[in-house]
Amino acid sequence: MIHTHQTAPTQFVEANGIRFAYRRFGKAGGVPLVFNIHFTGTMDHWDPAVTEGFAKDREVILFDNAGISSSSGEVPTSIEEMAADAAAFVRALGLTEVDVLGYSLGGLIAQTLAIAEPKLVRRVVLVGTGPRSGEGMATLTPEAQEIFGATYEEPDHLWLRVHFTPSARSQAAGREFLKRFRLRREGRDPEVSEKVAPAQLEALGKWGTPCDNPYEYLKALTQPALVVNGGADVIVYTVNSFILQQNIPNAQLILYPDASHGSQFQYPERFVRHVSMFLEEQGRGA
Amino acid sequence: MIHTHQTAPTQFVEANGIRFAYRRFGKAGGVPLVFNIHFTGTMDHWDPAVTEGFAKDREVILFDNAGISSSSGEVPTSIEEMAADAAAFVRALGLTEVDVLGYSLGGLIAQTLAIAEPKLVRRVVLVGTGPRSGEGMATLTPEAQEIFGATYEEPDHLWLRVHFTPSARSQAAGREFLKRFRLRREGRDPEVSEKVAPAQLEALGKWGTPCDNPYEYLKALTQPALVVNGGADVIVYTVNSFILQQNIPNAQLILYPDASHGSQFQYPERFVRHVSMFLEEQGRGA
Repeated sequence: MIHTHQTAPTQFVEANGIRFAYRRFGKAGGVPLVFNIHFTGTMDHWDPAVTEGFAKDREVILFDNAGISSSSGEVPTSIEEMAADAAAFVRALGLTEVDVLGYSLGGLIAQTLAIAEPKLVRRVVLVGTGPRSGEGMATLTPEAQEIFGATYEEPDHLWLRVHFTPSARSQAAGREFLKRFRLRREGRDPEVSEKVAPAQLEALGKWGTPCDNPYEYLKALTQPALVVNGGADVIVYTVNSFILQQNIPNAQLILYPDASHGSQFQYPERFVRHVSMFLEEQGRGA
Repeated sequence: MIHTHQTAPTQFVEANGIRFAYRRFGKAGGVPLVFNIHFTGTMDHWDPAVTEGFAKDREVILFDNAGISSSSGEVPTSIEEMAADAAAFVRALGLTEVDVLGYSLGGLIAQTLAIAEPKLVRRVVLVGTGPRSGEGMATLTPEAQEIFGATYEEPDHLWLRVHFTPSARSQAAGREFLKRFRLRREGRDPEVSEKVAPAQLEALGKWGTPCDNPYEYLKALTQPALVVNGGADVIVYTVNSFILQQNIPNAQLILYPDASHGSQFQYPERFVRHVSMFLEEQGRGA
């Protein structure tokens, strides 16, 4: 049976004393694409239009990092530890080379993983994310504090404000996203426990703390990188994507119009085409 | 006979009292793509890998604006007049809808044309260019002054420094570009007269002059726009492409790695694919 985002069973693998939950589907045989999700997100926070778009041509691996949802363990309070857990998970699957896609908090993990594991990580896709000590990253942005602090009639409607702009077109795309996001009916991940957000916020705070020469570390990210964001991201300000492109030695940047933090969910087909083009370029060069 | 960049004859059409030189080739029947070239450039300063890449799927129109090379008339000393001449040229061909691609100085013309002629211009591609009063645009940048002021054993080698970064990879791409750039052997455009650079510099100076709310005018550019540049452009600083994306209501940005002003000549296949994707999106919406 060919599995999809909706049908792929949750599997488990042990590493670092953690029982990692993951799902794996798509066209096997090439370099798999490993997804790293956002703040408080689980495997079910990805958009099937994105994951299945990629799955046509490559293997897609979703997972819950340590302490998240279906995985055991505790959420560590630093991005470095999260990246080390991610590396242990990838190795536990017996993989020696992967492409890594990280979104928001997951993009911090993806950067750190790519730098720590230059042989394991072939190419890296950084979506809606930013550098250490990035603009507005010392704490949640005022907009993020308001959006995450508000209450919503439907809890899912939080994501209409996190991922999309207030424009009619973006909100319409958001409602389509929410439908897709609920398509998987069986074997969904449980929501994260109340211990997840505080630990992730602590890690985000350390990452965002102002420091000297904050972008220097990006010189060590030598793999080809693709940086993607909406042109109007209020959760991780868009300028941070520009800063990433300017400081990673071999990075391409794509910014989408009238899009906020979740531009990849607003333009899933376009995003899959752009990222696929990037992943299919020859070798490790640009 | 199917014409190419190398074989398309230079034709002429009259408008605004100017005899405009142009070349037209590629797959007819859709919305043509009209190219606007850089400072002191002629029809022969385009890269056949780019123009023929587009010509597979659409009609390509190259032209010399007023006072340039094979066209008659004088180069006006403002971007607005250059854009008005470009509009007159397009109308003289009997066209009622075109896509417009502008590079560097040509990107200033393309912006202005798109704003002045919202019905005539369907979509706009802005390459290696910037907004009014952009960063480092009041005069030529120090790097541009040095590069344009230097002497070169081979005059064409100027373009290795204008369009490409000093890296070995970018320079190698530059040498390939120079070969392609000389492929057309018959019916080449003459180099521009000594009157062209001063008039174009005067227009660039007016465009770049600091003013209040300099980016406000971009709100009137309502067509879908794609902004493209190298991540390390020293002729029109890369940040200007970011500013364009942030201020044009419906703009996508793509920045290429290890590339300077001529990123489209460094990555011609990738550029053609990205721009073609953009031009083929549905209708006038994003």
